[in-house]
Amino acid sequence: MTTMKDIANRLGISISTVSKGLNGAHDISEHLRQAVLNTAAEMGYQTKKMKQTDYKKLCLFIQNMRYESPMDFGYDIILGFKQAAFRDRWNVDIIPATSSLQKSESYDIYMLKNGYNGAFFVGFSLQDEWLAQLTNTNIPTVLFDNHISRNPWVASIGSDNEEGIDAAIEHLYQLGHRKIAFLNGPIYSMISQKRNQAFLNSLKKYNLTIYQDFIIYGDFSFESAKKYIPHFLKNDVTGILCSSDMIARGAITECQNRGYRIPEDISIIGFDDLPISSTLDPLLTTIRQNRLILGRTGYFSLNSMLHGVSLSQTLLHPELIVRASTAKCSQAPLDLE
Amino acid sequence: MTTMKDIANRLGISISTVSKGLNGAHDISEHLRQAVLNTAAEMGYQTKKMKQTDYKKLCLFIQNMRYESPMDFGYDIILGFKQAAFRDRWNVDIIPATSSLQKSESYDIYMLKNGYNGAFFVGFSLQDEWLAQLTNTNIPTVLFDNHISRNPWVASIGSDNEEGIDAAIEHLYQLGHRKIAFLNGPIYSMISQKRNQAFLNSLKKYNLTIYQDFIIYGDFSFESAKKYIPHFLKNDVTGILCSSDMIARGAITECQNRGYRIPEDISIIGFDDLPISSTLDPLLTTIRQNRLILGRTGYFSLNSMLHGVSLSQTLLHPELIVRASTAKCSQAPLDLE
Repeated sequence: MTTMKDIANRLGISISTVSKGLNGAHDISEHLRQAVLNTAAEMGYQTKKMKQTDYKKLCLFIQNMRYESPMDFGYDIILGFKQAAFRDRWNVDIIPATSSLQKSESYDIYMLKNGYNGAFFVGFSLQDEWLAQLTNTNIPTVLFDNHISRNPWVASIGSDNEEGIDAAIEHLYQLGHRKIAFLNGPIYSMISQKRNQAFLNSLKKYNLTIYQDFIIYGDFSFESAKKYIPHFLKNDVTGILCSSDMIARGAITECQNRGYRIPEDISIIGFDDLPISSTLDPLLTTIRQNRLILGRTGYFSLNSMLHGVSLSQTLLHPELIVRASTAKCSQAPLDLE
Repeated sequence: MTTMKDIANRLGISISTVSKGLNGAHDISEHLRQAVLNTAAEMGYQTKKMKQTDYKKLCLFIQNMRYESPMDFGYDIILGFKQAAFRDRWNVDIIPATSSLQKSESYDIYMLKNGYNGAFFVGFSLQDEWLAQLTNTNIPTVLFDNHISRNPWVASIGSDNEEGIDAAIEHLYQLGHRKIAFLNGPIYSMISQKRNQAFLNSLKKYNLTIYQDFIIYGDFSFESAKKYIPHFLKNDVTGILCSSDMIARGAITECQNRGYRIPEDISIIGFDDLPISSTLDPLLTTIRQNRLILGRTGYFSLNSMLHGVSLSQTLLHPELIVRASTAKCSQAPLDLE
């Protein structure tokens, strides 16, 4: 366990100067204070507060994701995490990890200064600065839908995308669909890249032709569909898999606006099973991620890391929920008739 | 929840006959008894005993693996599983899942008859009959080093092989080794197939040539090395990665018997970090799997499944332990001098 003396020795300064740097005293220079904090973070120093068992603090950083209302993707994840953490008497702060916050300070120093024992990252993209810094952190950190390889202090959780995508493609295949498009999320999201690979694997599994121009990286929004749907329709696509329910909602609207019926003409599948998916017309077939349990799993993984169990990855089974937006393909091959 | 009445209705027999079938009474035919058991298993029936909270029973099936002594791979896995399960007041039976046991009865019926609430499978190969039956079971089941896709009642745990292999290859690469062989386990083990892929990925990552005839599926034994080492030596291999410490032990002996020095002439890396690896001469560099924690993780995954958390996969970080069986390559490229 690193002590203030270790930091003092490393920097060749007195223990009292180290203490001043750690506690934000004003009678040392900003330059020296930064050197103390950097060295403390680098050496894995834990403040007294962090070691106290009666005041334990975790934080959940959220970025690029809505979570304010029960309709939002992040809401249940946060709820599940908090419920499980509170039962073990942790305090939990929810902190939007804005890009200016990430630029203002390194992750390790932010955690040290604020006395957090560990963190759960939700919604980060591959472009986020703190994500890149996790290769070297020694603060127990759990990532939702991201992965850092070979750091024993960093674990990942998420849904088994391979399984979810495969269940969706099998469903479309069994309904006779052969020309299937994929409206994916943004390319700078790890999960989009995984789902892209899963989609290709499933097409191969069912001997379906891969049409590269029907496999689209967009973003997780309602508007994402608008740009690509006309191209799909012109080229006789009959099934569209979407990487979120919001994308699927956009796809349904776009098809309907152009006179196509869902599911009679086009089958559409979403991802997530947000509350919205059971209010759409038609009700949306989608791949359910149990977000409450994902949140809880985030906590249990973090708790395991805090107890020395070095987890690399935990994936949950997603579940295909078949509703009304998918049906037998009107151009189904004869062997299905 | 399925009742005896549901089973009786399905079979068109009386509830008392169902009860006799489930309780092994002698006044019904063997044929009828099997029909009752099959239907009960198929419908997910739970016996009274299985529902009692004061007598909860799990079992750990072990196959193709030694576990009797602390030197054996399975010993700590069983210990970790039992320790964690006992704390939650489970009874645990350790059962060798011999091939005759697997042939004598289906997995679901065996579990139902014996009143087990869930099971942990350790050491199964892809040829084992019960493994194939898991695609359709609805009994919470956790697999060590195996994977069944798309059954919400089946979870997998293990080490992150991709990471472990990558750490080993990076280590050899940094020591200047460019011609690296891989003595893998048997091809009918899922884990061997994963490690084979991980090995290929790592060679690509470090721009190393892939020599197919240096990538060998053997078995997890001391003798496995004997057959292939002469071919490696003749072709100037300088580094050998082995898929278990036992294989590595064989490789060291075989090289030494032929006058090669470890690590001066050949570097050798094992997998597992069994107790034996710190008694070999030279001490073995190896990829540590923390088997005690693997066992505990097996229990926690099973417990999660019993509480409705549908886990697909949990992987732990392995750790490269550098000892004396690896050293700088005597034929290292000039840029390392």
